[in-house]
Amino acid sequence: MTVFVCVCVCVCVCVCSLNSRVTMDAAEFRRRGKEMVDFVADYLENIEHRRVYPDVEPGYLRSMIPSEAPLEPESYEDVLKDVDRVIMPGITHWQSPHFHAYFPSASSYPALLADMLCGGLGCIGFTWAASPACTELETVMLDWLGKMLQLPEDFLAGTKGQGGGVIQGTASEATLMALLAARCKAVKCVHESDPQRSEADIISKLIAYTSEEAHSSVERAGLIGGVGIRMVATDEHFSVRAETLEKMVAEDKAAGFIPFFFCATLGTTPSCAFDKITELGPLCNAENIWMHIDAAYAGSSFICPEFRPLLDGVEFADSFNFNPHKWLLVNFDCSAMWVKKRTDLIGAFKLDPHWGIPLGRRFRSLKLWFVFRMYGQSGLQAYIRKHVELAKVFETMVKKDKRFEICAEVVLGLVCFRLKGSDELNEALLKEMTHLGRIHLVPCKLRGRFVLRFAVCGRTTELRHVQEAWTHITELSSELLLKHHS
Amino acid sequence: MTVFVCVCVCVCVCVCSLNSRVTMDAAEFRRRGKEMVDFVADYLENIEHRRVYPDVEPGYLRSMIPSEAPLEPESYEDVLKDVDRVIMPGITHWQSPHFHAYFPSASSYPALLADMLCGGLGCIGFTWAASPACTELETVMLDWLGKMLQLPEDFLAGTKGQGGGVIQGTASEATLMALLAARCKAVKCVHESDPQRSEADIISKLIAYTSEEAHSSVERAGLIGGVGIRMVATDEHFSVRAETLEKMVAEDKAAGFIPFFFCATLGTTPSCAFDKITELGPLCNAENIWMHIDAAYAGSSFICPEFRPLLDGVEFADSFNFNPHKWLLVNFDCSAMWVKKRTDLIGAFKLDPHWGIPLGRRFRSLKLWFVFRMYGQSGLQAYIRKHVELAKVFETMVKKDKRFEICAEVVLGLVCFRLKGSDELNEALLKEMTHLGRIHLVPCKLRGRFVLRFAVCGRTTELRHVQEAWTHITELSSELLLKHHS
Repeated sequence: MTVFVCVCVCVCVCVCSLNSRVTMDAAEFRRRGKEMVDFVADYLENIEHRRVYPDVEPGYLRSMIPSEAPLEPESYEDVLKDVDRVIMPGITHWQSPHFHAYFPSASSYPALLADMLCGGLGCIGFTWAASPACTELETVMLDWLGKMLQLPEDFLAGTKGQGGGVIQGTASEATLMALLAARCKAVKCVHESDPQRSEADIISKLIAYTSEEAHSSVERAGLIGGVGIRMVATDEHFSVRAETLEKMVAEDKAAGFIPFFFCATLGTTPSCAFDKITELGPLCNAENIWMHIDAAYAGSSFICPEFRPLLDGVEFADSFNFNPHKWLLVNFDCSAMWVKKRTDLIGAFKLDPHWGIPLGRRFRSLKLWFVFRMYGQSGLQAYIRKHVELAKVFETMVKKDKRFEICAEVVLGLVCFRLKGSDELNEALLKEMTHLGRIHLVPCKLRGRFVLRFAVCGRTTELRHVQEAWTHITELSSELLLKHHS
Repeated sequence: MTVFVCVCVCVCVCVCSLNSRVTMDAAEFRRRGKEMVDFVADYLENIEHRRVYPDVEPGYLRSMIPSEAPLEPESYEDVLKDVDRVIMPGITHWQSPHFHAYFPSASSYPALLADMLCGGLGCIGFTWAASPACTELETVMLDWLGKMLQLPEDFLAGTKGQGGGVIQGTASEATLMALLAARCKAVKCVHESDPQRSEADIISKLIAYTSEEAHSSVERAGLIGGVGIRMVATDEHFSVRAETLEKMVAEDKAAGFIPFFFCATLGTTPSCAFDKITELGPLCNAENIWMHIDAAYAGSSFICPEFRPLLDGVEFADSFNFNPHKWLLVNFDCSAMWVKKRTDLIGAFKLDPHWGIPLGRRFRSLKLWFVFRMYGQSGLQAYIRKHVELAKVFETMVKKDKRFEICAEVVLGLVCFRLKGSDELNEALLKEMTHLGRIHLVPCKLRGRFVLRFAVCGRTTELRHVQEAWTHITELSSELLLKHHS
């Protein structure tokens, strides 16, 4: 029997700085937080009266604030004043109903509330134990979402499935994860039949494929993964067809390369085109090529039965990804990724059962949970349908004006159009639009031509905004054409 | 002169779903948002009365909620009720003053307010034009922070510097970025002297180095980058020394490999040890090895002059990273990374002037701005000092109890300790602690031995919490020792 020493906790040390002043306590947070709620609500309620694209020059901000952090605390009032003075003039208002650039960046009040809760809890879910609710809600929410999309059972975790979903930050990360998992699987597979071959040699022969219309992040994933990547030409609808890929794969195999990965796009960034995955899937399966589907924008629409056929062929895919933070009312960041075999993803990173590059992660599934429950599937479907209908309205208006042409089939909420005539003319039109800042569009190149993209983005975009946008565009065009022809 | 067609915006289409019911409007958000502010304030004010580690079994959550998303909207009250019923029992309370696991995950009221604003603005800053304020504030805030750390001028952007800082999500991402940039630079460099050599061949010869005590994400970065990675043995203080690395580099060069990257750690995860970068830096510079410094946890302390010497040697580094989201009162995610040459990072990804894997990004610099201004540099220094002093108090108590031993030098807010005796004994102590859930610690392995880590984590951790924790630990130990010896 040991003699226990006295357990003494009265340690007399000088803890002089232990009573440091509190900068903002809970009471002040209650007051300031409520003010911030009103600030955000005011901002969103009045956003349409702001210039959607800011009128500042690069470097505008640096001279407006000190060059060093203050030594002593400043007042909250001063900080908030500077939000209006320094930040607001430099914001591109993504949530404005006049914002028609890029693709939507989702937002909704339930998602904002969930994000506040997530911030308050401040837990980091990098393992199950680090916050069980965080890991578990994410798995179940991705099952809910997978069912909403009618994903094949293989992709769901359920209680004993081999597949499952995980939240990534962005589609770029999901693409990279898929490519790395495919690389790992391909190396293992070649090794099995040819154990002499070094990993480096195998990797140097791997070839990935994606559409020439695919997002640049696919090419970048190839660069990061150190594998070759080839761009596949598209048909007249900007879609990759099996025939084209098949030829490239045959060529590459004949030249001693190892085709291992194809990233299909459903809803390309330039024109929202759809690769023909019902043809491509069987080809990839036969050739032992990992098919990843990037449906970053379009994916949200697949919750509507009438758009779900666009996803047909997903049953052939190894992984699938889309961004609820684009078009499903869940604010950034929340990119949903599913795989058929969780072990493929886990195996690629050997070190722990985590499925992404970052180890730490916010409690992002709370946003999905709040939004799914507060909108219901019917509310989310209605939201998607409204955006698609608004795009159709815009398309109809463009078609009625013979000075313009539609440049790609309008399937969802994006309309690609241009003034008949030179690229310069269209560039001048966009430049004037951006200069005035009443609506915001960005361009794309389709078959080498400069094309304007009109995307329905805002949660509060209504028919009148679309009509006003068109009026504005046509008025500017009239002035421009007059100038060009006079 | 052309004939203009009539600009007609009266398009008669059936827009039946355009008047869909609003799920939650601004008025309701004002009410619910204010309730949520109170919910968060209540949570944080009363957090210490909660069990810090949850008492749930894996899989607990799935059966508590439906297996599919509701078709129709539910009420907000029901959602909030479920937060209490489903989520709270499964939360590990990272913000509790009884939380001493891992490293801190920062939080503060000013950061929460900034995050609310960030969510409300909902802008995505992937290029300057996508939201000028977002890109510009980030650059200036990283300059502010760089100055607070007294980083060499080379790392700052200023108005015409070649260096600069960028916010990444996590230190894992920063390490990967640095390794990829170094890989790109090394390939280019070898190519210049030996243009015949293929990129794949060069990459297969590249070797990266890091401490055997380094975070697993460094090894993973090597796996992703497809390069060899070797673990460097540490000295009796768990620090990498130049002598050891020098030998490995010489060996590898002699064997035809190309040393190209060393990831130094300042403040390792297991014991907060510091690699000797004043020795290692000159070695790396002489050998043309990219030195990246990962100071994920410890970096925040360098804002205090008394801890700044720990960063001496940073002048030899090519890149440096730490996580304000760990210990600088800025909530997750916000990992600050600086490079001496921005072009190195941009060059590694060719495709666009973006410095990370994800393209989209939240307006995270707002959190830095709010926190720096509301706390002031003095307030942040006081906060760091308080945590370090609390760790010293804990260390003193451990040292006074002869049943225990300190297992690594206590430099900042982490104390590594154990009961003298077997690993089993210490494992039993931790198991009991975790089972009771009054305080939460995680273990580590040091030289093969099972060691307990006591980290001061909470923003509201006070002297009494540290004393209570020690009383609890000693009481459990007494019972345990009694049982083991009876």
